[in-house]
Amino acid sequence: MADEVVLLGSWASAFGMRVQIALAEKGIKYEYREEDVVNNKSNLLLQMNPVHKKVPVLLHNGKPVCESLIILQYIDEVWKDKTPLLSSDPYQRAQAKFWADFVDNKVYWLGRQMCTSKGEELEVAKKEFIECLKLLEAELGDEKPYFGGENLGFVDLALVPFYSWFYAYEMCGNFSIQAHCPKLIDWVNRCITNDSVSKTLGDHHKVYDFVLMLRKHHGID
Amino acid sequence: MADEVVLLGSWASAFGMRVQIALAEKGIKYEYREEDVVNNKSNLLLQMNPVHKKVPVLLHNGKPVCESLIILQYIDEVWKDKTPLLSSDPYQRAQAKFWADFVDNKVYWLGRQMCTSKGEELEVAKKEFIECLKLLEAELGDEKPYFGGENLGFVDLALVPFYSWFYAYEMCGNFSIQAHCPKLIDWVNRCITNDSVSKTLGDHHKVYDFVLMLRKHHGID
Repeated sequence: MADEVVLLGSWASAFGMRVQIALAEKGIKYEYREEDVVNNKSNLLLQMNPVHKKVPVLLHNGKPVCESLIILQYIDEVWKDKTPLLSSDPYQRAQAKFWADFVDNKVYWLGRQMCTSKGEELEVAKKEFIECLKLLEAELGDEKPYFGGENLGFVDLALVPFYSWFYAYEMCGNFSIQAHCPKLIDWVNRCITNDSVSKTLGDHHKVYDFVLMLRKHHGID
Repeated sequence: MADEVVLLGSWASAFGMRVQIALAEKGIKYEYREEDVVNNKSNLLLQMNPVHKKVPVLLHNGKPVCESLIILQYIDEVWKDKTPLLSSDPYQRAQAKFWADFVDNKVYWLGRQMCTSKGEELEVAKKEFIECLKLLEAELGDEKPYFGGENLGFVDLALVPFYSWFYAYEMCGNFSIQAHCPKLIDWVNRCITNDSVSKTLGDHHKVYDFVLMLRKHHGID
């Protein structure tokens, strides 16, 4: 029986993009279903991720897997013959998971804070956000094209979708990420030479419009 | 060469206890170094976990692994012959990681909120905390003694250290966890029949005194 793979995602979700890139890297055919996570979550989503009610959800032969980094590991373990995302070395695996977790717990949250605040709160988040990107830039180093080494890997897939949000972060925070982290932007540009990435990333301006709508909705500006 | 294993922990850290239980389950000899995380972090800790500056840190032959759930996976991959913590089945692995992540992102944070708030904020956290424990109770079900099945596994190790904090949560929130989740307490009692758990868990009253000290320090009561 051929695998039936369905992805529940949402166009602006960097977490969903991670899974799209992984599926593309592995050459897995799947059906993508767009969810309206702001106004109208589908019954399928509520049924398949009743705990968090969030995208992405990967349905593999009808069984749900939730949380993007867990989905990436699942994909890497099930379709293990092509394009490994994680090294087979336990220490390298642990390091990659550490930095992917750092993206979730620092980069994402600080970015979100910049999008939903102003004044002093925004400035504090921006300062820490830049520090976090600098740590990632240092981790990348000068010796290898990707966090994963010679090829896209787990940390690359965890981080690069947030590039779709960089313009919105820059507009909200009135700063240039390239000015602070030029090597990280070089890395983004290398990532984009991969079809799996360039065909997945969201439109910067559309994401920024989405952020403006959210800010208006929450009465921030 | 024999493995040199050092654990940097702190007596009240449920995250550190996870690693202690895993090392005991695997029968790994190690040196434990207590960190004063409130007042005086060691240079070794700052050097080995410069990003988060937190315990636990596992030093394996001098190389640091950080973040407790990542450490558990590392231990399971390096010492794979004895007492597997995660199943070899990708779907079961993903489910276990999902619930362990749920403990980190819900149970821990809501517990922390109860310890550092009062009034309406505390009541809101308490209500959600109980709902989260009920979800875990439902996930455990009636068919198996542990989340991991017949033996302690990844989710058991992720959750059971927080039992050390249950008394403090109950005192802060003026409620009984057993009254809401009797089957979860039955599960705790089963976990405690394992030396790895009973010898690791922290003293309830000492943890509560620690919480009272923190509340006083932050001017909460």
